[in-house]
Amino acid sequence: MMPGRFIAFEGGEGMGKSTQARLLAEFLRGEGRSVELTREPGGTPGAEAIRELLLSPPGEGWTLGAEALLFAAARADHVARKIRPAIEAGDWVICDRFLDSSRAYQGRAGGMGDDRVRTLHEIGSGGLVPDVTVVIDAPIGDVAARLVNRDGEESDAIGGRAAEYHASVNAAFLEFARAEPDRFAIVDGRGSVEEVHEKVLDALSRFLGTP
Amino acid sequence: MMPGRFIAFEGGEGMGKSTQARLLAEFLRGEGRSVELTREPGGTPGAEAIRELLLSPPGEGWTLGAEALLFAAARADHVARKIRPAIEAGDWVICDRFLDSSRAYQGRAGGMGDDRVRTLHEIGSGGLVPDVTVVIDAPIGDVAARLVNRDGEESDAIGGRAAEYHASVNAAFLEFARAEPDRFAIVDGRGSVEEVHEKVLDALSRFLGTP
Repeated sequence: MMPGRFIAFEGGEGMGKSTQARLLAEFLRGEGRSVELTREPGGTPGAEAIRELLLSPPGEGWTLGAEALLFAAARADHVARKIRPAIEAGDWVICDRFLDSSRAYQGRAGGMGDDRVRTLHEIGSGGLVPDVTVVIDAPIGDVAARLVNRDGEESDAIGGRAAEYHASVNAAFLEFARAEPDRFAIVDGRGSVEEVHEKVLDALSRFLGTP
Repeated sequence: MMPGRFIAFEGGEGMGKSTQARLLAEFLRGEGRSVELTREPGGTPGAEAIRELLLSPPGEGWTLGAEALLFAAARADHVARKIRPAIEAGDWVICDRFLDSSRAYQGRAGGMGDDRVRTLHEIGSGGLVPDVTVVIDAPIGDVAARLVNRDGEESDAIGGRAAEYHASVNAAFLEFARAEPDRFAIVDGRGSVEEVHEKVLDALSRFLGTP
């Protein structure tokens, strides 16, 4: 059996990652592919329990080190219990956030450094990286308007951080993409959901052949 | 202000660590010292929440990597929020299990290796080690009898593992102690609780002067 493919969506808050991940999953299913649509932190019972601790810390808030270790622990469970088995079964795995979010949030914006984040990923998940990582990029102003329009969502422990933190996150994703052009596709997030979906399909066809 | 001291108790299941940690704390308080008695995994609200996940995994059980990352995350919170502040305030911190339990359980018995466990501790907790680590050692037969006598305690995800795993853990603690005689004291766990307590005090006086 052919091994499956692993595609991650990355980008700052409000870039439309979850919507685009879902639209891609629907498109691929329509093409007859077996698709596992998942997200981080979370995706398995163990990782979802860790997600709860991350977004609603029971104490005074996690230190940077504890936060990075918890993300890596959730990812280790997710990779071992869902992502690797699905890839080995020939499925296409589409994940809303993966390693590069830890690199951007804890490694860059938090100041932990890329080496440490990668070391945790090596220990927890054997260093697994996606075949393609789609970074959705849109101007911060557009995004702020979109976030205000989200109904009923309260800001969590990470989403609620200062604008400077989120600007650093966005810059980090673009820098990662430019440093590893064979693994990353930058997709312009401006325009309608459908327009961006078309750009995602175009980008993937360049990486994977016609999806 | 003089910084405080940090003493950890280590050893396999049923060696009497918790009892001896408590007796030492009572003794030191009787001497007029300010003592913080704590335990791992746990000791802070964040770390206690992680403890729950470790002992009752929500999914199929943690992989070795996820387990080691969760222990390191709990320790990072415990060190940042309780242990370091107490030491800096001049307290004596007495901890039931610390880093060497991760070295023995995940590093040795689980097969992850000492380097990886130490790397996680460096990233999470800046590599903090106790001033003295007391390893309580007793023959496996005595311990089995003691564990059977514990009322109302169900075997958890780690305590319930095979005898071979626990034998490997016990051997690891003794080996760590022999490799770092300046940090470890091996205390013979045979005899009454009071007798072992006296041996602990003797051992500590050699390390710290009269406690």
